[in-house]
Amino acid sequence: MKVSVFIATSLDGFIARPDGSLDWLPGSEDGEGGAEGEDHGWTAFWDSVDCLILGRKSFEKVLELAPGAWPYEGTRVIVLSSTRTTVPEALTGKIELRAPDPAALVEELRAEGHKRLYVDGGATIQAFLHRGLITDMTITLIPVLIGEGIPLFGPLAEDIPLKHIKSESFPSGLVQLLYEISRQ
Amino acid sequence: MKVSVFIATSLDGFIARPDGSLDWLPGSEDGEGGAEGEDHGWTAFWDSVDCLILGRKSFEKVLELAPGAWPYEGTRVIVLSSTRTTVPEALTGKIELRAPDPAALVEELRAEGHKRLYVDGGATIQAFLHRGLITDMTITLIPVLIGEGIPLFGPLAEDIPLKHIKSESFPSGLVQLLYEISRQ
Repeated sequence: MKVSVFIATSLDGFIARPDGSLDWLPGSEDGEGGAEGEDHGWTAFWDSVDCLILGRKSFEKVLELAPGAWPYEGTRVIVLSSTRTTVPEALTGKIELRAPDPAALVEELRAEGHKRLYVDGGATIQAFLHRGLITDMTITLIPVLIGEGIPLFGPLAEDIPLKHIKSESFPSGLVQLLYEISRQ
Repeated sequence: MKVSVFIATSLDGFIARPDGSLDWLPGSEDGEGGAEGEDHGWTAFWDSVDCLILGRKSFEKVLELAPGAWPYEGTRVIVLSSTRTTVPEALTGKIELRAPDPAALVEELRAEGHKRLYVDGGATIQAFLHRGLITDMTITLIPVLIGEGIPLFGPLAEDIPLKHIKSESFPSGLVQLLYEISRQ
């Protein structure tokens, strides 16, 4: 089973501004664009995912960005939160709310026959990385420095060696990197 | 005149461990190797440089790593320091010690006809970037996460948009990115 990250960062390693804002992403409402029409492998990746594990803040960002819509229809979604206990009524039955226990969750989903988990959200990705649970990361580098924000990576107990699988650059200036991580 | 950065970072954006250690770099004495024999464009880059601007800590790291040797023979070297007032006797005449004033220094070197400055050292790179003085950055991503250390990038007064020029990956797993920065 793959446990995957698929995310965009500024060249200085941020996934969002300090307030969660994504206006620096090309193609965002406020952004400069230039990457429209480029798929960056998202469709193929998403088609391979059978369970999305989403951090609470990212979940709330999705609700904020697309109120009333639910972009993950048809895919199992598990939201991890230590604090939140309810979900919006419209999403009842569409998401599962769980307290974070990354290792146990990965084992459970493996036993249930899942093939590829997609882990999203800054703190959530860090928690899974820290526990050696991530098997591959697709990182799309946006050609901008934003100076501060929510970092993709954080402190680790020990170095994590990566295996570079491929890189691809796009006409818009985005560079996409794929790394695999061997289980320690 | 180009004002260039040419540096390696871990995928999580560090140029050294907190204590300045570089043991995670492939080919370092303590490192795992795997990139030996790959030049990564260093020779061509260095041949294009007519002045190296080095931060004080990086200068001292060079002295520590290669005691008695001076790897920059034949190229003008300016060491920036707010605190250091003397240089080792063996280096008298080989380096110029200056108080940091990036913008004035760049103008002075431009007026003197320099073609390409190479800015090195974490705090020094950040100071030049912050003032909009860097024209291009070659960043070699090492396939490892080290969790903490001295970051390449730091806070900025405003976003710095970059122009992606090219990317190249090497058999060892290193990925080299070249970005240009337009003068604001």
